[in-house]
Amino acid sequence: MVKKIEVPVSGIPFKNNANYCVGTGRMGLALQKEYIDHLKIVQEAVHFKYIRGHGLFCDDMGIYREVEMDGKTSTFYNFTYLDRVMDSYLENGIRPFLELGFMPEKLKSGDQTVFYWKGNAAPPVSYEKWAELITKTLNHLIERYGREEVVNWPVEVWNEPNIGFWAGTMEEYFKLYEYSAKAVKLADPRIQVGGPAICGIDTEHWLRSFFEHCIKKNLPLDFITRHCYTAQPTTTRGHYVYHVMNEPTFMIDELRETRKIMSDYPQVANMPLHITEFNSSYNPLCPVHDTNFNAAFIARILSEAGEYADSYSYWTFSDVFEEADVPKSVFHGGFGLVTLNSIKKPTFYTFEFFANAGNELLYRDENIIVTKKDDTYVIIGWNWHDMRDHKESPDKCYSLLLPSVGKQALLVKKEVGGANANPMQTWSNMGKPRNLDKKQLRILQAAAEPLQTDAKLFENKGVYEVKLAISCNHLCMIEIMPVDDKTDSYLGFDPEEFYGMK
Amino acid sequence: MVKKIEVPVSGIPFKNNANYCVGTGRMGLALQKEYIDHLKIVQEAVHFKYIRGHGLFCDDMGIYREVEMDGKTSTFYNFTYLDRVMDSYLENGIRPFLELGFMPEKLKSGDQTVFYWKGNAAPPVSYEKWAELITKTLNHLIERYGREEVVNWPVEVWNEPNIGFWAGTMEEYFKLYEYSAKAVKLADPRIQVGGPAICGIDTEHWLRSFFEHCIKKNLPLDFITRHCYTAQPTTTRGHYVYHVMNEPTFMIDELRETRKIMSDYPQVANMPLHITEFNSSYNPLCPVHDTNFNAAFIARILSEAGEYADSYSYWTFSDVFEEADVPKSVFHGGFGLVTLNSIKKPTFYTFEFFANAGNELLYRDENIIVTKKDDTYVIIGWNWHDMRDHKESPDKCYSLLLPSVGKQALLVKKEVGGANANPMQTWSNMGKPRNLDKKQLRILQAAAEPLQTDAKLFENKGVYEVKLAISCNHLCMIEIMPVDDKTDSYLGFDPEEFYGMK
Amino acid sequence: MVKKIEVPVSGIPFKNNANYCVGTGRMGLALQKEYIDHLKIVQEAVHFKYIRGHGLFCDDMGIYREVEMDGKTSTFYNFTYLDRVMDSYLENGIRPFLELGFMPEKLKSGDQTVFYWKGNAAPPVSYEKWAELITKTLNHLIERYGREEVVNWPVEVWNEPNIGFWAGTMEEYFKLYEYSAKAVKLADPRIQVGGPAICGIDTEHWLRSFFEHCIKKNLPLDFITRHCYTAQPTTTRGHYVYHVMNEPTFMIDELRETRKIMSDYPQVANMPLHITEFNSSYNPLCPVHDTNFNAAFIARILSEAGEYADSYSYWTFSDVFEEADVPKSVFHGGFGLVTLNSIKKPTFYTFEFFANAGNELLYRDENIIVTKKDDTYVIIGWNWHDMRDHKESPDKCYSLLLPSVGKQALLVKKEVGGANANPMQTWSNMGKPRNLDKKQLRILQAAAEPLQTDAKLFENKGVYEVKLAISCNHLCMIEIMPVDDKTDSYLGFDPEEFYGMK
Amino acid sequence: MVKKIEVPVSGIPFKNNANYCVGTGRMGLALQKEYIDHLKIVQEAVHFKYIRGHGLFCDDMGIYREVEMDGKTSTFYNFTYLDRVMDSYLENGIRPFLELGFMPEKLKSGDQTVFYWKGNAAPPVSYEKWAELITKTLNHLIERYGREEVVNWPVEVWNEPNIGFWAGTMEEYFKLYEYSAKAVKLADPRIQVGGPAICGIDTEHWLRSFFEHCIKKNLPLDFITRHCYTAQPTTTRGHYVYHVMNEPTFMIDELRETRKIMSDYPQVANMPLHITEFNSSYNPLCPVHDTNFNAAFIARILSEAGEYADSYSYWTFSDVFEEADVPKSVFHGGFGLVTLNSIKKPTFYTFEFFANAGNELLYRDENIIVTKKDDTYVIIGWNWHDMRDHKESPDKCYSLLLPSVGKQALLVKKEVGGANANPMQTWSNMGKPRNLDKKQLRILQAAAEPLQTDAKLFENKGVYEVKLAISCNHLCMIEIMPVDDKTDSYLGFDPEEFYGMK
Repeated sequence: MVKKIEVPVSGIPFKNNANYCVGTGRMGLALQKEYIDHLKIVQEAVHFKYIRGHGLFCDDMGIYREVEMDGKTSTFYNFTYLDRVMDSYLENGIRPFLELGFMPEKLKSGDQTVFYWKGNAAPPVSYEKWAELITKTLNHLIERYGREEVVNWPVEVWNEPNIGFWAGTMEEYFKLYEYSAKAVKLADPRIQVGGPAICGIDTEHWLRSFFEHCIKKNLPLDFITRHCYTAQPTTTRGHYVYHVMNEPTFMIDELRETRKIMSDYPQVANMPLHITEFNSSYNPLCPVHDTNFNAAFIARILSEAGEYADSYSYWTFSDVFEEADVPKSVFHGGFGLVTLNSIKKPTFYTFEFFANAGNELLYRDENIIVTKKDDTYVIIGWNWHDMRDHKESPDKCYSLLLPSVGKQALLVKKEVGGANANPMQTWSNMGKPRNLDKKQLRILQAAAEPLQTDAKLFENKGVYEVKLAISCNHLCMIEIMPVDDKTDSYLGFDPEEFYGMK
Repeated sequence: MVKKIEVPVSGIPFKNNANYCVGTGRMGLALQKEYIDHLKIVQEAVHFKYIRGHGLFCDDMGIYREVEMDGKTSTFYNFTYLDRVMDSYLENGIRPFLELGFMPEKLKSGDQTVFYWKGNAAPPVSYEKWAELITKTLNHLIERYGREEVVNWPVEVWNEPNIGFWAGTMEEYFKLYEYSAKAVKLADPRIQVGGPAICGIDTEHWLRSFFEHCIKKNLPLDFITRHCYTAQPTTTRGHYVYHVMNEPTFMIDELRETRKIMSDYPQVANMPLHITEFNSSYNPLCPVHDTNFNAAFIARILSEAGEYADSYSYWTFSDVFEEADVPKSVFHGGFGLVTLNSIKKPTFYTFEFFANAGNELLYRDENIIVTKKDDTYVIIGWNWHDMRDHKESPDKCYSLLLPSVGKQALLVKKEVGGANANPMQTWSNMGKPRNLDKKQLRILQAAAEPLQTDAKLFENKGVYEVKLAISCNHLCMIEIMPVDDKTDSYLGFDPEEFYGMK
Repeated sequence: MVKKIEVPVSGIPFKNNANYCVGTGRMGLALQKEYIDHLKIVQEAVHFKYIRGHGLFCDDMGIYREVEMDGKTSTFYNFTYLDRVMDSYLENGIRPFLELGFMPEKLKSGDQTVFYWKGNAAPPVSYEKWAELITKTLNHLIERYGREEVVNWPVEVWNEPNIGFWAGTMEEYFKLYEYSAKAVKLADPRIQVGGPAICGIDTEHWLRSFFEHCIKKNLPLDFITRHCYTAQPTTTRGHYVYHVMNEPTFMIDELRETRKIMSDYPQVANMPLHITEFNSSYNPLCPVHDTNFNAAFIARILSEAGEYADSYSYWTFSDVFEEADVPKSVFHGGFGLVTLNSIKKPTFYTFEFFANAGNELLYRDENIIVTKKDDTYVIIGWNWHDMRDHKESPDKCYSLLLPSVGKQALLVKKEVGGANANPMQTWSNMGKPRNLDKKQLRILQAAAEPLQTDAKLFENKGVYEVKLAISCNHLCMIEIMPVDDKTDSYLGFDPEEFYGMK
Repeated sequence: MVKKIEVPVSGIPFKNNANYCVGTGRMGLALQKEYIDHLKIVQEAVHFKYIRGHGLFCDDMGIYREVEMDGKTSTFYNFTYLDRVMDSYLENGIRPFLELGFMPEKLKSGDQTVFYWKGNAAPPVSYEKWAELITKTLNHLIERYGREEVVNWPVEVWNEPNIGFWAGTMEEYFKLYEYSAKAVKLADPRIQVGGPAICGIDTEHWLRSFFEHCIKKNLPLDFITRHCYTAQPTTTRGHYVYHVMNEPTFMIDELRETRKIMSDYPQVANMPLHITEFNSSYNPLCPVHDTNFNAAFIARILSEAGEYADSYSYWTFSDVFEEADVPKSVFHGGFGLVTLNSIKKPTFYTFEFFANAGNELLYRDENIIVTKKDDTYVIIGWNWHDMRDHKESPDKCYSLLLPSVGKQALLVKKEVGGANANPMQTWSNMGKPRNLDKKQLRILQAAAEPLQTDAKLFENKGVYEVKLAISCNHLCMIEIMPVDDKTDSYLGFDPEEFYGMK
C-alpha cells in the first residue's frame, strides 16, 4: 500500500537533539590512537557537541594521588592525562559532559567495583576530599581552557546510583550529590550541575525522592539526567548476550513519563532533561548493535525523542570499549557507531542523517520525517523489524508531493540496508575474521558505505512527486535541492552524442 | 541466453600489459598540483610503470637556452623543471618513457605549431645542437638519478611525424631519428631507443620505410612505436567533437597487422611493439571518454592487446590537459581517467580491474576473462554498446563453474555502469555545473565509486557456480578468494540472534 | 657605544601593515604545486591578508575566449583556472587584490609584450569588450564566492602604465581606467577600485594628472597605488643583475612625497595609499634578495612605512616566478621570501617578525622597535650594511629598561644572520648545486632556521634590564612574556641534583 | 691542550649496535596515540631494528582469558590488542624483541606485583598452560605476519628474575625457562630464545648457574641477556629520585666481565650477548635522563659497547611510561628519548648521531670517534661531566688531520648542549609548566633542536684540518663530505656582488 502525502509548504520547528551528546568508553581509553581515529570519523560526519562517559576519577587517569615526604602525606592532583584527553576532545570539536566518578583508590571506602576495568563504586572515605577533588579539577580546567569555555561544560553527579554502580544507599547518593554540586558551584556558579543519572529501575521513586531532596535542601540543580535502554533482560551464552527487544516507542513512553513526574515539581518542571545514555541493548556483547535493524530502530527514536528530552546520548560512539573485557573480534556486539579498524556500522548513518536534517519539520509518521533547511528537503525513512521471527516486514511505500523549490531539482538518496552499509554481513561472508588483513579491511570499508543514487526531478503543477519504498530494516536519506541547469551554455552540446546520458 | 562455462583448472599466461604505460598532457603540466593529485590517485589504484607525453623540450620546461655575455653567446641547459617533474614521477612510483620533442624556440627552423599550447613542429636549425641537447639532458638525468636507474627509461623519437606534428618530410624524420638515436646511445648504450611514433595514417608505408632505413644504415633501434585510435573522422560542433566509432577489434586488427609488417624484417620481427598512444576518440572534446560505454569498450581492447603489443599507453591518465585549450567544465570530453576535481571516470576502473587481473588466463571471450592469481580468481566482464542507436544491448549472461579453492569462498563484485560509477550522469542531473562547490564535489566523488557487493560461495562437486549478467555498457570485476570460516570459534554464537544475518 | 633606553609604560598605536598584502608571480603559476607549498609556508608564519600579482587576463589563465559555430562567433568566459586559483588562495587564508591585466590575445591591439612569459601590453581593440570581461569576471566570482566576500577584494587597474607595461599613452591609460572602474562598480558598487599602479618614473606628473582626470570626470576611485624599489639602475652580467643600492629611507621619502602630492587634492588626500609592489632590487636575478642584508634592510622599511601607506606589498612571496625565465638554480636572486624546494630566505623572517609585532609602539629608532601586545613585549632589531665595501658595520648595542610585567619573565630571542638563517651561504659552501638531493635539502632547511635562545628575567626596581647587540646584517626578534613559576609545586625538587640546570 | 690527531686513511670495522634495539614502556601503552607519535619521531631519525619491553602477557593486553559456558570453562586467547600493537610496530619499521611476561591474572600463583601498573611476578599455577600460551601466541603471530617474518623476532624469557620481578627461586626461574624455551621452539625451531634477563645483582652466580643448567639439560639457548645501569642506589625525595653516578666505563667493564664469564663455557662463549636494558639511572623519576650530561655520558658507552655486546637497548625510547605512576609534568626524569608533547631530549641525538656513524672506525678515544662511510667522514664528540660538583670540565680540544676526499669539502656540525638542544633548561626558564600551551610547545620544540653550522674545507697537502672544541656536557656530530663546486657554471657570477657571501 502506498501512502500518499501532500507535504505542506511550511511546518513546525524540528526538535532534533540527535547530535547534542554521545557516549564514550571510559576516559582513559581516550588516550588510545584507535579511539581518536574513531572520534575524528564520527565528528566529521555527525559533529556531536558533547561527549559523556565514565572514569574521570578512575586511577588510570591518574588524577588523585597522595605522596609522602619527610613523614608528611599530601594530596597531589595530576592532570597530565586529563589535559591530553580534553585537548583531543576540543581539537575534534567536542566538549566534555563531565560525569563525576568513579572513586579513586585512595578515597574509596570499600572494594565493590564495576566492569572488567574495575571502576570503584564505593562512597568516599572523606566527602570533603571528594569535594576538593571536584573543585580543584574544575579550577585546573578553567585555568587551562579559560573560564568562558569551561562554564559550557555540564557536570553530572555519578552514574546509575540506583544499581551496582553505587555501593551506598539512596540517601548516601544524595549526600554525594550535595557535596558534589556545591563543589562544582564553588569553581564557578555558572557551571551547570545535575543528576541523578539513574537507569530504568525504580525510576519514579528515585526521581521523586531526588527532586524533593534537592528542593527541600535548596541544592544546586540545573538539569535532570537518566538513562534509557529498550532491551529486556539478558541471556548470556559464552561471549554473547541476547535479549527480547521492546519497541522503540518504549523509550518515547519513558521520556514522556519522566517529563510527567518532573511536571509535578514546579522548580524542576522546565529544567532540561538529558538522557545521558540510551541504546537498544544495554550490553556490549549483543549483536543487535552491529545490525541494520538497529539503524532503523534508533531512527524511530531520534525522530521523536527531541519533543521530550534535550539530549539523548547514544551509548557509545566507538567500539574502543572495555566494560566487558577487550573486544575479541571486529564485530562483537559492541555499542559503537564505529567498530575496530574504523569500520562504520549501520547506526553511524542514523546519526549522520539526523545531524543533517532540516530545522523545519514538514511531516512525520512512524517511518518517515520530511524536513527542510533553506531550500533543500531532507527526508529520512526507516523500516525496522526484528527478523528473529524469520519474516520480512513489507516495504513502507510513499508517494510524496513536495512543493517545488524551482523548475528542476536534484534528488540524492543514500541507502543503508540489505547489500549496502551492512559490513557485519560482509564480515560474516568473509568467515568472521577476528582481526583483519589489509585486503579484508579494504573490502569491509567499502562494504560499510551506503548506496548513493541520484535523479533529476521536474516541477509539475507546483510540486515534485517522489516515490519511495523502504525495505525491511533499511534506512535512507533523501536530499532534494534546486538545480540551476547550465546545459544551454554548452555550445554544440548534442544530447544524442552522449552515449545514453539522460 | 546464458553461456555456461566450465572453467579449466589451469590456463595459459595472461599477456596483460594494461598498466605498463600511460599517457599524459605535456610535461609542463606536471608542475601543477592538480596533475600530481591525479597521478597519486591513479598510481594508488593502477600502479602504471611508465608515463609518456609530449613537451620535454618545449619552452615552458625551460631546458634549452642561449645566453649572451660580453658579446659571446653560449648554450645553457636549465633542468630546474625537468628535475622537479622527474622527482615527482619517481615519488609516485612511475618512470618516464621519454618522447624527444618538440622543438625549442631557439632551435626551430620554422613556425608550424600544434595545439593550443603551440608545440613547435619544425626540424632543428642544427641537428648537432639537437643531438647535443639530447645527450646533455640524458647525462644530466644520469648524474641526478643514477645510471642504473636511467638506463630503464626508454626514449622515443618525436611524435606522429606522419602528420602535422612534423613540419618536414619522412626523410627528414629519418635524419632526426638518426641524430637522436645516436645521441641517446652516446649517453649510455643500454638506454633503449625507438620510433617512428606514427599515428594510423599511411602506416604501412612509414613502417616499412623506417625499418628499411634503420636496417640499411644500421641505426640503433630497440623497439617500434605507433598509435591507435578507434574513432572515425570528427564532426566539430562548438565546444564538442563527435565521431562514428569503430569496434574495439579495429585496434586489435591494427596491432596484428603491425606485427605482420614487422615480421617481414627479421631484425625487427621480435622487437617490442609499444603503442605509445591509444584511446577510442583521438580528440579531447569528445564526450565518449567520460562514459561507461568507454569503460566497457576499452576493456575489450585490454583483454587481448597484450597478445600483440608490449604496451598500449592510454591517452591519458588525467584531464589536466591543454591541447584543445584549458578545459571548460568538470566533464568536457577529455582523455583522462580522472577529471578535474579528482573525480574518477568509468574507464579508471577498467585499468584498475585489469591491473588487478591474475597472471594465469583460464578463459576469455568477447565479454569476459577469467584469470587466477595464487588461489584467487579475478574475473572481468564488460558489455559495450554504442547507445546512440537508442537500443540497449541485451545482458551478457554467464554461468561459470570454477574449480573450487576450498570448501567456502568469498565473492566480491565491483560494478561500473547504470546508477554506479557514472559521475557524468550525476553531474548532468546536477545541471552540469562547470566548477563544483564542496557539496557537489562530495556527491560526485561518491557517485564515481563502483557498487561493491559480496556473497558466500560453497563448493559443490569440486566447483563453485557463479551466475553473472552484464548489462549494457556495464563493466565489472569479480574476485573469488578462499575463506577460512572461524564461526566455530565464536563461543555462544547463535545465528538466530543476529537479526537476519546470513 | 651602548644606547640606554628607558622604555615607557605606554606608547602609541603601531601602524604596522607588514602583512596586509604580498606580491606573487603571475596568476597562472598559482596552479603549480610548488607555488602552493610556498604559500602554505608563508601563510602559516605571516598570515598575509591579500595577494597581488599580474596575469589575471593572460591567456595561460584561459579566461577570455571566442568560439565559432555555424558561422557565428561568440565570446566565452572560461573560469576553470580562475576558480582553482581563488579556491586555493581562500583555503590558505588569503584574498586576492585583483590587478586587471594584461591583454588577452583576442582583445589585443598590438604585439608589445613584457617578460619571458609575454604579457601583452597593448590597449584593447574594444574597450566595451574589455569592460564586459571585467564585469563578467567579477559577477562570476560573486556567484561562486558570495557577494559579501567579493566586495572585500580590491581591484587595481593595470600595472605600471608609465613604462613598457602599457603600449599606450597616459591618456589611453585614463580611458582604460575609466572603462575598468565603471565595469567594476557595475558588478558591485562596494568593490573598491584604484590606480594608477605606476612605478617610480615621472611619478609626480602621472599622479597629478591621474588625480585631476578622475576628479574632473568624477570617476570611481577608492584608493591610490604606486610601486617603490630602492635600487638604482641595473648592470647585467650573464645570468645576474647588479645595482647600486639606495638607503631604505629612500622609500620612506617616496611615501612621504606621494602623501604630499595627494594632500593637494581634498578628494584624494585621505584615500588609502597602497604600495602594490616594493623591494630593494626590482630585478629577479639580483643576489641581494637572498641575503641577510636584505632582511635587515627591509626591516628598516617595515618599521616606518605604515605611517604613510596602508599597505606595501613585498614583491614577492615565492621564487616560483618566471618573469626572467625559469629559475636556473635554488638561489638565483629571485624576489621570493621562499626559494625553490621550500627554503626560507632571511627576509622571510622580517615579515614573520613584523607580523608578530605588538599593536602598541613603545619605542622606535633606526635599528629597533619595542612593541607590546597584551602583556608581552615584542622587540625587533636590525643592522643593515652593504658589505660590498668590505667593512663590517659595528654592532648596534642597547641596554633596554622595560617596565616589568611580573616578578619573573621569559625572554625568547630569534636571530637571523651570520651562521644562522643564512641558507645562501650554506648553499655556497655546498658548491652551489642547482638542484638539491635529499641530503642537501635537509641540511639547507635546517640552515634556514633562525637561532633561538632563551633566558629568565627578574624584575628589579620595577623593570627588566635587557642587553642587546645587533651585529652587521643581523635581524632579531625578542619576546618577553611573564612567567608563573611553578617550581614550588615540585615536591622534592632539589636544584643541586639537576646536573647544572639553572 | 689541543690533541692533534692524524687520522689514518683506513681503519677497522666499527662495531656499532646503537640502533639494534630500544626499550619501551609496557606493551599496553603502545595503544596510545602519544606513544605512536613518539615512535614515529624516533624511527624517522634512529631507525631502531627492534623494540623490547614488558607486559606482553599482562591483563591490559587482554590475551589470556578463560570463559565459562554450560558449566564448562575453556581457555580463550584474545589477540585484538596484540595485533594492533604489532601492526603499528611493523608500520614504523621496528620488530618486537619479545619478552615473555608478566603473569596473567588467571595463571598467577600469587599476588606479588611490580610497578604502579601491577605486573604480576608470580610463577604460573600451571607450567603447561603457560607454555601453551607462548606457543599459541607465536603461532598466531606466524599466521598473521608470516613464518619468515616471525622467525626474526627473538624471545627473551621473563625480566630480572634475580630481583622482585620474579616471586620464585632461581630454580623456579630455570623451570620457567625450560618450559618457555621449548614452547618457543615448538612454534618454530628457528625462533631465537634466550635469558636470563638479569639485572646487575648477584650476576656471576646467576649467569654461571643458568649456563650450567642449560648445558646440562641441553635446553634451547640462542643468546644471553642481562641489564646494565650505571647509577648507585637511590635517594627518594617526594616526586624525585637522586643517585651517585658511576662513570660510563662502569658499564663497559660489566660487559667485559660478562663476556669473560661466558667464555668459560664453550657452548655459550660465542653466543650473542644482548643488553636488553641499559641507562644511567634505573629510575624514571631521576632528572639525569633529561640532561645534556646524559647525552654525552651515553655517547661514551655507545662508542665502545659494541665491542662486547650485540645490542644494548636504551631504556626507553619514550616518556609514555607508567612504572612510577602517570608522569606528572613534561620533564619529570623519565627514561625516554622523547618526552611528553613530542619534545626530543638531548640523548635523542646521541642515538641519532650514532645511528648515522660510518661503518669504518678510523680513530677512537675517550671523547671522540672518527668514522667513515663511503666518502663521508662522520665524527662524534662528547664531554660528560657531573656538574653537581659545580665545576665545569675544560673543553676537549682537537686538531684533526683528515685524508682529503677531494679538493673541497663541506663540513656540517650539529651541537647539543649549553643553549642548544637543552629543552629542560628552557622549560625551567618558562617556570616549569606541567602541561604546555601551544606557544610554550612551539618554543620548546625549537629549543630541542641542535645548533647546525657549516663551513667549507679545502685540501692542503692531502688533508683537511679540522679544529674542534667540545665544551662541558656537550655532544656534537660533524659530517665532512666532498663538494663538487659548480661556481664556474654561474655565468656572470661576481662574488663581490653578494653582500659578503663567502
